[in-house]
Amino acid sequence: MTGKLVVIGLGPGNGNQVTPEALAAVESSEDFFGYIPYLDRLSLGPHQRRHASDNREEISRAEQALTLAAEGGNVCVVSGGDPGVFAMAAAICEAIENGPLEWRDIDFSVVPGVTAMLAVAAKAGAPLGHDFCAISLSDNLKPWGIIEKRLIAAAEAGFVMAFYNPVSKARPHQLSTAFDLLRKHLPGSVPVIFGRAAGRVDERIRVVPLSEASSDMADMATCIIVGSVETRLIARSGKEPIVYSPRFSKRES
Amino acid sequence: MTGKLVVIGLGPGNGNQVTPEALAAVESSEDFFGYIPYLDRLSLGPHQRRHASDNREEISRAEQALTLAAEGGNVCVVSGGDPGVFAMAAAICEAIENGPLEWRDIDFSVVPGVTAMLAVAAKAGAPLGHDFCAISLSDNLKPWGIIEKRLIAAAEAGFVMAFYNPVSKARPHQLSTAFDLLRKHLPGSVPVIFGRAAGRVDERIRVVPLSEASSDMADMATCIIVGSVETRLIARSGKEPIVYSPRFSKRES
Repeated sequence: MTGKLVVIGLGPGNGNQVTPEALAAVESSEDFFGYIPYLDRLSLGPHQRRHASDNREEISRAEQALTLAAEGGNVCVVSGGDPGVFAMAAAICEAIENGPLEWRDIDFSVVPGVTAMLAVAAKAGAPLGHDFCAISLSDNLKPWGIIEKRLIAAAEAGFVMAFYNPVSKARPHQLSTAFDLLRKHLPGSVPVIFGRAAGRVDERIRVVPLSEASSDMADMATCIIVGSVETRLIARSGKEPIVYSPRFSKRES
Repeated sequence: MTGKLVVIGLGPGNGNQVTPEALAAVESSEDFFGYIPYLDRLSLGPHQRRHASDNREEISRAEQALTLAAEGGNVCVVSGGDPGVFAMAAAICEAIENGPLEWRDIDFSVVPGVTAMLAVAAKAGAPLGHDFCAISLSDNLKPWGIIEKRLIAAAEAGFVMAFYNPVSKARPHQLSTAFDLLRKHLPGSVPVIFGRAAGRVDERIRVVPLSEASSDMADMATCIIVGSVETRLIARSGKEPIVYSPRFSKRES
């Protein structure tokens, strides 16, 4: 008997940003797989089981979850943010493709969520109001050369950029390298937003010009948005400025 | 007396994808501005007022909403999806920047939501599992040359792409032009997902290779995801294939 596996996203961390669809998936599941702090956000009943694992164990977590689902389990894999953006949905797909054929028969679904860049953008104004891209700065999974190529392409084509996984203990210097590279391709006045725990009580949103952006302004849980040359600041007295990217573009190609 | 203005996103259309935060903003507001079908999704009480407008009136809608908020109103501007992604948040910011200085004193906030590409991606698997970009194909607000430049940059740098506003009655041919252009820069085998009304009863998700992608597969309400050269299909018997972009990249820069 083949079971089901649903991958859900809990949003950036504020319980008010979890969708009813994600909560319903939690209620109807029995076995929960995920990174410890995400599982800690669930209110589980006595018939529901936690299978917590560490942050860097995505593939073994995916394989355990699929094994249980293939045996008839009623499995929920839990991500923060949106599960399809640099999170567990792709790891599950990868495990399905490389695993036993019967894993393809599992009733597999994905429940979307509010991904970090949307929550950070909302706190700053509307920096993602025009064309934008999302880049993971982790080179655990791809060569750093590709990341540099994408940063340059995005800067030159006028995309606003959101960075996920900007730094980690194992990768303290890459964000500095990325900022240095971008300073060669964008004016120093371009606003950079460092957003941490958007929507939570410990929220920290900071806006600096690219010329002053520095890697020590970020940690693993920070989502960074780098404006384009068209991104604007609206000054306000007694309040943080609003950052937005106009819907229109006056630039010629 | 200065009032407040909150811009909310209702998600892609399924009521189960509206966050509690957005519902709370609706409950605590009195005047609602938005495109008619978005306002139709709200359950308003007798003390709450609708100010519906047509789709292409973003700036006049923004100005009316800000005028009322500046007079002390308790205003909610309603978007589908996420309000910061090709939606009302940037239009409000633009109006604030160009409007009277007192508009900067309005208590302005943005409530994020599940944007269309996340809902469409969830239905297909995990096509946004690796670096990606979001591009509005409407040239109402920017020269078509910029759009072409961004399409080529994204294809060559290996970004998955999500297209918003892919076609309209006034712009029937641009999506064909975009596909023709991409076929010069990407293999014809790259999967293209046409997602309409993801999560609603009338949902329609269709996956075709880029070589067969055609503009008559989309309408104004379709969100399109174009894979990268690394995006993969997992065949399943009796079910639609899963589409995903692996978290890792084997390409060298």
